[in-house]
Amino acid sequence: MVNFGVIGYGYWGPNIVRNLIAVEGTRVLAIADKLAVARERAQRANPGVQATALASDVISSSEIDAVAIITPVWTHFELAKAALENGKHIFVEKPFTSTSAQAEVLINLAARKNLKIMVDHTFLFTGAVRKIKQLLQESMLGKLYYYDSARVNLGLFQHDVNVIWDLAPHDLAIMDYLIGESPEEIVATGQSHLNALEDVAFITLYFPNQVIAHINVNWLSPVKVRTTLIGGEKKMLVWNDLEADEKVKIYDKGVQVTNREGVYDLLVNYRSGDMWAPRVEPVEALNLELSYFVDCIANDQTPFNDGQAGLRVVKMLEAASHSLRHRGANRHTVSLNSTTWRQLPQTAPQLP
Amino acid sequence: MVNFGVIGYGYWGPNIVRNLIAVEGTRVLAIADKLAVARERAQRANPGVQATALASDVISSSEIDAVAIITPVWTHFELAKAALENGKHIFVEKPFTSTSAQAEVLINLAARKNLKIMVDHTFLFTGAVRKIKQLLQESMLGKLYYYDSARVNLGLFQHDVNVIWDLAPHDLAIMDYLIGESPEEIVATGQSHLNALEDVAFITLYFPNQVIAHINVNWLSPVKVRTTLIGGEKKMLVWNDLEADEKVKIYDKGVQVTNREGVYDLLVNYRSGDMWAPRVEPVEALNLELSYFVDCIANDQTPFNDGQAGLRVVKMLEAASHSLRHRGANRHTVSLNSTTWRQLPQTAPQLP
Amino acid sequence: MVNFGVIGYGYWGPNIVRNLIAVEGTRVLAIADKLAVARERAQRANPGVQATALASDVISSSEIDAVAIITPVWTHFELAKAALENGKHIFVEKPFTSTSAQAEVLINLAARKNLKIMVDHTFLFTGAVRKIKQLLQESMLGKLYYYDSARVNLGLFQHDVNVIWDLAPHDLAIMDYLIGESPEEIVATGQSHLNALEDVAFITLYFPNQVIAHINVNWLSPVKVRTTLIGGEKKMLVWNDLEADEKVKIYDKGVQVTNREGVYDLLVNYRSGDMWAPRVEPVEALNLELSYFVDCIANDQTPFNDGQAGLRVVKMLEAASHSLRHRGANRHTVSLNSTTWRQLPQTAPQLP
Amino acid sequence: MVNFGVIGYGYWGPNIVRNLIAVEGTRVLAIADKLAVARERAQRANPGVQATALASDVISSSEIDAVAIITPVWTHFELAKAALENGKHIFVEKPFTSTSAQAEVLINLAARKNLKIMVDHTFLFTGAVRKIKQLLQESMLGKLYYYDSARVNLGLFQHDVNVIWDLAPHDLAIMDYLIGESPEEIVATGQSHLNALEDVAFITLYFPNQVIAHINVNWLSPVKVRTTLIGGEKKMLVWNDLEADEKVKIYDKGVQVTNREGVYDLLVNYRSGDMWAPRVEPVEALNLELSYFVDCIANDQTPFNDGQAGLRVVKMLEAASHSLRHRGANRHTVSLNSTTWRQLPQTAPQLP
Repeated sequence: MVNFGVIGYGYWGPNIVRNLIAVEGTRVLAIADKLAVARERAQRANPGVQATALASDVISSSEIDAVAIITPVWTHFELAKAALENGKHIFVEKPFTSTSAQAEVLINLAARKNLKIMVDHTFLFTGAVRKIKQLLQESMLGKLYYYDSARVNLGLFQHDVNVIWDLAPHDLAIMDYLIGESPEEIVATGQSHLNALEDVAFITLYFPNQVIAHINVNWLSPVKVRTTLIGGEKKMLVWNDLEADEKVKIYDKGVQVTNREGVYDLLVNYRSGDMWAPRVEPVEALNLELSYFVDCIANDQTPFNDGQAGLRVVKMLEAASHSLRHRGANRHTVSLNSTTWRQLPQTAPQLP
Repeated sequence: MVNFGVIGYGYWGPNIVRNLIAVEGTRVLAIADKLAVARERAQRANPGVQATALASDVISSSEIDAVAIITPVWTHFELAKAALENGKHIFVEKPFTSTSAQAEVLINLAARKNLKIMVDHTFLFTGAVRKIKQLLQESMLGKLYYYDSARVNLGLFQHDVNVIWDLAPHDLAIMDYLIGESPEEIVATGQSHLNALEDVAFITLYFPNQVIAHINVNWLSPVKVRTTLIGGEKKMLVWNDLEADEKVKIYDKGVQVTNREGVYDLLVNYRSGDMWAPRVEPVEALNLELSYFVDCIANDQTPFNDGQAGLRVVKMLEAASHSLRHRGANRHTVSLNSTTWRQLPQTAPQLP
Repeated sequence: MVNFGVIGYGYWGPNIVRNLIAVEGTRVLAIADKLAVARERAQRANPGVQATALASDVISSSEIDAVAIITPVWTHFELAKAALENGKHIFVEKPFTSTSAQAEVLINLAARKNLKIMVDHTFLFTGAVRKIKQLLQESMLGKLYYYDSARVNLGLFQHDVNVIWDLAPHDLAIMDYLIGESPEEIVATGQSHLNALEDVAFITLYFPNQVIAHINVNWLSPVKVRTTLIGGEKKMLVWNDLEADEKVKIYDKGVQVTNREGVYDLLVNYRSGDMWAPRVEPVEALNLELSYFVDCIANDQTPFNDGQAGLRVVKMLEAASHSLRHRGANRHTVSLNSTTWRQLPQTAPQLP
Repeated sequence: MVNFGVIGYGYWGPNIVRNLIAVEGTRVLAIADKLAVARERAQRANPGVQATALASDVISSSEIDAVAIITPVWTHFELAKAALENGKHIFVEKPFTSTSAQAEVLINLAARKNLKIMVDHTFLFTGAVRKIKQLLQESMLGKLYYYDSARVNLGLFQHDVNVIWDLAPHDLAIMDYLIGESPEEIVATGQSHLNALEDVAFITLYFPNQVIAHINVNWLSPVKVRTTLIGGEKKMLVWNDLEADEKVKIYDKGVQVTNREGVYDLLVNYRSGDMWAPRVEPVEALNLELSYFVDCIANDQTPFNDGQAGLRVVKMLEAASHSLRHRGANRHTVSLNSTTWRQLPQTAPQLP
């Protein structure tokens, strides 16, 4: 039995609690939130659980094994550090921390105390991302060409982070998992309109072997778009997360240059074949992720969405924000030998 | 009566000839193409028209008043210069020229000889762009926030130009017409995969007053996308050029920051109202454009899509290509006092 | 305070209970279900509520004021009759009863005892249907021409009723509410494939003044369709219930015959104007319906979705099933003077 | 060389002429149209072709081998009869004739004189219909359950025929080809709104073995719909003719009843698997059809879209119109032993 405490019962916290309760072998013992109204909601929905105003009640409880930290990003480091120091495993809302230095402190601390860190990159547990990962591992698309993602809508303005820190963690975590390589350079552009925080941004990531990724995030779009194009030498893929039934489509389409003799003799062949939409398992991603976390604790295994995965996303967010502030001019060069990218697992893990 | 000669009868040339013939007050006297097969096609479709292998036959003909140059971009300058020197008005396929220096030579030459230059920015004559221009002039959207355009598909690979020079002229010409301002800086990223020419590219343009534009062009997409989002303070607009009936949709949606006291007291209001798809006039854009050209010649007026408009697009293409070659690092700063942007007309012209 | 008992805790019952609890001024005291597993679920989700295997426990409880009957249609009559005889108001899942005779018995019984009947035509409380009703009342579409609805998907096969009795109650209730007239004749066709129950059916309803309605219901469709076209003289409307944001679209399109001199001089004018998608209130339909039921009880008012509304739907289901069994041949003629249609309210009611 | 004459140069005639000219081994010698403006258009577009006001000039010309009759349906019989009597093969616009009696006269006349009749069921030559026919022949869908088609839009009102005779010939010809069986009974409902001609209609066709077809045709729809669902035991198919790229989608979805012991023990299994959109050959249907006609003449073969195919469609149109006039009541029973359905070929023909 893994006993959980949850800190933060705002928008996402109730989902965490509900799903934690549904996972076999877990209990939620306490929920902390500063706001009385949140505590009342927590109490009404979960009569047997202690509701407290103090995070320290959760962190210091001797009955609690693991703490879920579902608070704004600027609070993650202090809470996570205290929890680890008190010997708790931690499940932390994305993005992991406000800085990569903070993430490294937490990773080292957890390693020393043999505690688990999981960063809540929920999308990695959806049927769509798992299916795409499987197809990429099977080399269905051939050599990868590009990854182009758009995540735009009329967004929930954050008070403390710009649109990159709010929306791009999803795309960066997915891209990191699917491409499985360290980016070489990161260029970002964008603009703020309503206050100092950028609400529209465009991130380009250069990878080795001519792979390029692009992420378009926007809080000011009248329409919701959640589309990712992945182009490869053999096939191309479109993932539209807003489609109810056929989220992932694979196109047997491509271009081949067959003759490179002279620039005007270049022969380009277009291939246009069938389209195929594989069945995507209708899993509850958050439930699967939390079951996996409990599994990792029980079996002393490192989750693939661990602190290192969280750190990689934070590093990319830092690089993008830095470039954005200089209108793309100061592109950020990522060290290819970076330790954290060497932790990137190449295959999809078995999940419970 | 305006007598036309046409140089180039490949993919687009037949459309130009067919539409020129349909315009009242014009005749097509001669068609030049190096390829025998193109000349045969031209002859079969237009029995009374002279088909010649030599562009000089068209350029030097004393019967011809205006020359349409529908050839690859690297040939534009020499052909256009010769035509102007021979006293012909010119209609030039986009992009206008390979360099801005060439464009300036042609503009000055035409001015000295009082000849008209029209650059074939066909999209400016579509019902959709004309409707959007009208809405922007009426301040329907309020203060402009961003312009975000995607033009992707499995593309016709060009032998001599990259995806920016092939696809972005459309978007840059439309954006130039709709925004009506000089960009301050241009940042571009992208990648080549099949040969030395970039097939995927992303261009960001910074304008004054926090207006930002972004253009996504891609030759390697399995699906065709032709979508532009335009965000404003009061309303937001989506133009999907692939929709048969409702190409332009205006959303009465928005975000307003009403309280700036402290960062955590920030009150953001979301407005979500009706959507409205105005009827878009089903005009034949190319026919309208060519009628307008004939009109401008007849009435000695300068078209709004003149050499200056062509030059502005070429300057932006040069800037984007320069930045692209440096992975976004060397962003290009555009002079705000640039003569050519001062030529930008602020209102949509009356068309025939 | 209105105290409720709920009979039936299968697929829909939990939604009823959850929403009843959320309505101000109500309590749920008891839930009856024959299945132990359903009772356990009920108990777990609603710790303070009595769970019983016997419907009679609910019906005879002196503390209970109103009973919600959320069971298969063939059980409705006996349960509803017993509840009314015990002085309870009743909320009955659609379709109201298995026969119109049963419905009439219940209506008369309730009238004698001054008890309320509400039939759960949930769709009438959605933002989309309420918006369409408002537009029709404002004569936005002009004279009505047709109502054409499709409700198809890979359906939950019922054991006891065919696709008409399963899916068409939704459409018939909505159509009854929106058109507000008695149909003159009903023709139905269809076919069974897997057992004796029809899984595909098509219903045509003739109304006075050349109004025609058509309903396409299908349990064997690979794709889900929930679309209704409503054509009028002035405007036309499309309601696509699967669209997330723009469920209702009004087209300023039409056809006008302007000259009837001779058949070959007939001049037909097409009008093609703007499209407009009004904002649809994102209400929780079931919550609104149950609040309205409690309101009707408290204020002694007859709900518009009362027993008569339920009876009208059952009459149309009977007529359609009769015609269906004869392959459309024995069309059913509905009496225009039918009492139940004279109860049809012409305007949308004020809701809480 | 097959020499053609064309009668009728209105909306569709120019397409026929253009495609006939493009077919190898054909010439168009003469075009007849009563209207001077049509003749002028014909002359301008086809300088070498004789344009005449008299159909008899075409029919009696000794140089002409085959006549294309592209006129309103009420003129088909007289023109076709005269052409056959003059020894010409005929290509007749759909629907073949105004009555089945007329069709039979023409079929017998052509048989006696060994002349070819082709009825212009163009859709049978599209890539989509040919692909669906191939899939059905390969039993991809398993036992057929239903065929449900909608063809609605803001239509071109016809002066002389109702919406069934205008739009349904397409669907009936396609259905006849794909199902390859004789319907047993035909039920139709519908309504007129603007004049005496029905503008909205619904046709149900009962086939042997519980196969049912339904056709929804409507001239008063604000949106264009061209969708056909085909349900089978093993798989289900959606053909959306308005999609640019993925017109045909096959769903590995279905329902299976596995236990028929008692009605309440009925076990229904849902199968939900991949979706697959086969590449559809982008053929020019009209060009292929006319090439096939010339082929049939040259090789003395009977086309599959011959007079019998035209007669079958006319018989179904007659039956549907009859039932429609009686509001579905007088359903029409089709003789299973009908000669014309015995002519129905079971396999798709080889085309040029």
